[in-house]
Amino acid sequence: MSAAPKSFIVRLFPIVQWSKTYNPEQAIGDMLAGITIALTLIPQSMAYSALAGFEPQYGLYASFMGGFVYAFLGTCPQVNIGPTALLSLLTFTYTRGTNIDFAVLLCFMTGIVQLMTAIAQLGFVMDFVSVPVISGFTSAASLMVASSQVKGLLGIKFKAGTFVDTWVKIFKHLGETRITDTMLSLSCCTILTLMQYLKKIPFKKPESDGEKRRAAMRKKIFWFIAISRNAVVVLLASVTAFLMFESLNDPFHLTGPITPGLPTPQPPPFQSKVGDKVYTAREMLSRLGVGLIVVPMIGILANVAIAKAFARGKKVNATQEILAIGICGIVSSFFVSMPVNGSISRSAVSDASGVRTPGAGFYTGALVILTLVLLTPYFYYIPRAALSSVIVCAVLHMVETAIIAKLWKVSRIDLIPLVGCFFCSLGLGVEIGLLCGVGFDVLLLLYYNSRPPLDIKHVTDGILPPHYAIHPVGRLSFAGAERVRTKILNLQFPEEHEVPSSDGATSKTKPAKLLVVYCENLYRLDYTFLQSLKMLESDWRPHSKIIFCNARPSVKEQLKGVLTDSIYCDSGELRTHLISAPVMPAAVEVGKSENATV
Amino acid sequence: MSAAPKSFIVRLFPIVQWSKTYNPEQAIGDMLAGITIALTLIPQSMAYSALAGFEPQYGLYASFMGGFVYAFLGTCPQVNIGPTALLSLLTFTYTRGTNIDFAVLLCFMTGIVQLMTAIAQLGFVMDFVSVPVISGFTSAASLMVASSQVKGLLGIKFKAGTFVDTWVKIFKHLGETRITDTMLSLSCCTILTLMQYLKKIPFKKPESDGEKRRAAMRKKIFWFIAISRNAVVVLLASVTAFLMFESLNDPFHLTGPITPGLPTPQPPPFQSKVGDKVYTAREMLSRLGVGLIVVPMIGILANVAIAKAFARGKKVNATQEILAIGICGIVSSFFVSMPVNGSISRSAVSDASGVRTPGAGFYTGALVILTLVLLTPYFYYIPRAALSSVIVCAVLHMVETAIIAKLWKVSRIDLIPLVGCFFCSLGLGVEIGLLCGVGFDVLLLLYYNSRPPLDIKHVTDGILPPHYAIHPVGRLSFAGAERVRTKILNLQFPEEHEVPSSDGATSKTKPAKLLVVYCENLYRLDYTFLQSLKMLESDWRPHSKIIFCNARPSVKEQLKGVLTDSIYCDSGELRTHLISAPVMPAAVEVGKSENATV
Repeated sequence: MSAAPKSFIVRLFPIVQWSKTYNPEQAIGDMLAGITIALTLIPQSMAYSALAGFEPQYGLYASFMGGFVYAFLGTCPQVNIGPTALLSLLTFTYTRGTNIDFAVLLCFMTGIVQLMTAIAQLGFVMDFVSVPVISGFTSAASLMVASSQVKGLLGIKFKAGTFVDTWVKIFKHLGETRITDTMLSLSCCTILTLMQYLKKIPFKKPESDGEKRRAAMRKKIFWFIAISRNAVVVLLASVTAFLMFESLNDPFHLTGPITPGLPTPQPPPFQSKVGDKVYTAREMLSRLGVGLIVVPMIGILANVAIAKAFARGKKVNATQEILAIGICGIVSSFFVSMPVNGSISRSAVSDASGVRTPGAGFYTGALVILTLVLLTPYFYYIPRAALSSVIVCAVLHMVETAIIAKLWKVSRIDLIPLVGCFFCSLGLGVEIGLLCGVGFDVLLLLYYNSRPPLDIKHVTDGILPPHYAIHPVGRLSFAGAERVRTKILNLQFPEEHEVPSSDGATSKTKPAKLLVVYCENLYRLDYTFLQSLKMLESDWRPHSKIIFCNARPSVKEQLKGVLTDSIYCDSGELRTHLISAPVMPAAVEVGKSENATV
Repeated sequence: MSAAPKSFIVRLFPIVQWSKTYNPEQAIGDMLAGITIALTLIPQSMAYSALAGFEPQYGLYASFMGGFVYAFLGTCPQVNIGPTALLSLLTFTYTRGTNIDFAVLLCFMTGIVQLMTAIAQLGFVMDFVSVPVISGFTSAASLMVASSQVKGLLGIKFKAGTFVDTWVKIFKHLGETRITDTMLSLSCCTILTLMQYLKKIPFKKPESDGEKRRAAMRKKIFWFIAISRNAVVVLLASVTAFLMFESLNDPFHLTGPITPGLPTPQPPPFQSKVGDKVYTAREMLSRLGVGLIVVPMIGILANVAIAKAFARGKKVNATQEILAIGICGIVSSFFVSMPVNGSISRSAVSDASGVRTPGAGFYTGALVILTLVLLTPYFYYIPRAALSSVIVCAVLHMVETAIIAKLWKVSRIDLIPLVGCFFCSLGLGVEIGLLCGVGFDVLLLLYYNSRPPLDIKHVTDGILPPHYAIHPVGRLSFAGAERVRTKILNLQFPEEHEVPSSDGATSKTKPAKLLVVYCENLYRLDYTFLQSLKMLESDWRPHSKIIFCNARPSVKEQLKGVLTDSIYCDSGELRTHLISAPVMPAAVEVGKSENATV
């Protein structure tokens, strides 16, 4: 094999590289992390599947192939691919009132779109989503996910779409609250919260070496219990439900009978039947609509963000990451999977468990398969309220409030895109909210671009003739053209005054308007800005002299293409030009404006 | 009267100011200009009225109150308010299939929206429309107007909407071409073109004083004939039609019977009947739809552009201009007017005629009223083909081709918004095209903002320890955050090397990564950029030192709020900090990432 294809394969499959030096220490790290993630992933994926509107096993179907594929293609050890709260919410939005076929097709198409994005190297588009916008978006999505689970917590049933609609219906159906389900939810949430805070219990500081070892061990055990809280709660709730099922009459909403075992591998469905209606591939795709763009983009956004957060100073190959999740989605869709993605919370667990390579995904996937093979018959008894509790406790932590104080401290204006994105997301849906957030950012950018800082000084040092010196800072563009022109037009120049002329009489002279523009910081001007300079030049003619100092060749060429009467020089020649060069005579322009446009 | 209200009135009514010094010379200038404009305005307004889909008298109804009101409120002597090709095209788009009531309501609402824009000082929004976009938009609109008149030139009849639709139907109906109408159109267009080029005939250079005077006189006469070409052609065509009307059997499509005389002043209609359907005010407004925003905005854009073009170095009070055209629209709508605006071509005529004050509008308006009173009975005989010829010859000159060469020369990338706006306007309608053009501009702005020029140098002068010096130029924002971080992460620092330690043995030392950022040009950072700096700082810890030099207080405060380990100093203290300050120790971060997000 020649070098070029080999390096291509190494780039495409990072596993080729890292497996060369894979050692037992790394294997143990990966195994421990893989098992720990599985403890979080298995209950969460079932809950997220319910969130998307499907039976819990579909969450598990979506949880093993992603890990396997990512182990080959991924670059970030911490990433775990599977269902996430956000993607499940979006899946619910775009497949509401249909069936799992639509979710599987969405998973497949999401992968295809992500793959194309990677190949076209379009991932950089995500750089234009700012941190405040992501924060507002995440908080709103988390609140929406939590709201959608309130009915599960209370044991009531209704169908709702938007955030507002959900809360209106919750209050409408509040009378139907089932006391048993609510009690169970309260218990689950309490246990989840207590277990989570277990690891934060303060102990007295260890002194001896033995104490230190015991303290470290205790810390590890508590941490592990905290991590396994979701699995523990679902197990406890299911056992409770199983025991009470015999004695009481239908105390909880249960998951009910589901298909046991592994999914049958099959191509993603391009035809489906919902009720009496048969959907063709075209109709299915048109039903998924903008979801075909929104879901892949959100997936990319989340995944690249995770990879960056755990990069620790190494460069993130965003294109490879996008490619990896794209192929994960495509392969997963052959195993009846809903859309999958990296999860920020599972990545943090993975990181804290000491993961070493993306190979951890093998262990996680294997455990998910074991669960599917052995445990699915018992899923019948999982109470809906327990799954809802798992979701609510997971997502409420994702509502970011700390950033508000930080923004207030360092960059108050950035609260606008955050708050705007947050409320637009809640009111108009997360995808429109995200667009609005980016829109607010672009408006702020326009605002600042329309106010380029101009350092204007009136130089009267006695050495050079009195003139205005302008040091533009940063890009001058169409957005700032009018403002800059107005600023310069408003400069106060000395009025005309009488001077004795050579023939003894006095004559009125108007001192020329002298303007020196220092162009060191200018890299490019656009046509609109050049036009406004041209207007300035012809408006001031003949009593003015505009000198562009130290312009780089490309900028000088642009200026010369438009401004005919201005002077270009280095700072060394500035003095000569300021003192000696005569003021330009007024160009004769008879009938010019009339010819041009009549 | 106290000073404050008086100055308010002077600002609101510039006539108070300029009428104080109004002298016979100015009056004569205004009168000549006013009469000249009327010669252009009267035939054009009838033609534009036909373009909007209404009878010719409505164009005249729209042509007198605007001038009167603008004389009181306007600041730019050259502006003449009346129907324009662009606004008539838009009026046609938004009132198609209704009646004149809708156009009058649109005129009224346009005025109201413009008035509100002026009061809210929102006119600055128009600064974000760049010259290339305006150019692409104008050219596309002109082509669309010309296309819509081809059927009139050929004497065929059909209804069409978009540009493509129009041309499809022209070819479909080409067989129905009427030879008489086509002959008339050809004659009209030929005469119009010849008369327009009359003033460009080259004569031999005058030598004696008498010759010079005669040459100047001849030039003036030729110019006047050129300006009156529209009126002459309509008159000639009407006389021809009148004469042939008796002898031949219906040779031309004529205007037909219209209501003679002046319009009856009445409030704008808030109820109307189209066919059998009675529209309420709400239904009328909902029928006008986005036109209620698009028409006022385009009007503002055109008017401010004219005022700027003729400002000659004086500051344009854009708010007053917007206010003036807003009130012109509102008042005009009480006289059964369609939407009105300043016209760029008439302004050029006005300028070349030596206009002195906005008072010229009085003379123009008076002539329009005279026309309505005396000439309407004869409008019956105006051939449609003549009006179409007037429009086509007027708008084809507005297709801008020269700018393409200019852009190619000075700023090639600006061709993207121009060409994009042009084709989107033709394909999707002018209002969507304009939005697309602005969108392209914003994308270019984002592109450049995402590539902030960084002047990075590796300093190894022997005086200071080797370090990288970064001079950022221009605004650093979220759009460029990722790119800047990657650039800095990619910098090559010296590898660790062995040095003799104090106890005689050698030990490995890693030289610290030294980075000096000169902040003179930074005025503000946004949160996303600050976050990416923070990531850089913690990624590089502990073997790095980042020094921010000469940051202004506001920027320093922003940086300090986020970066905990960096150093801030003036350039004077730089040497001390570079040499002496120890490298920061790694901060202890046990379980940090895990606590934060699980």
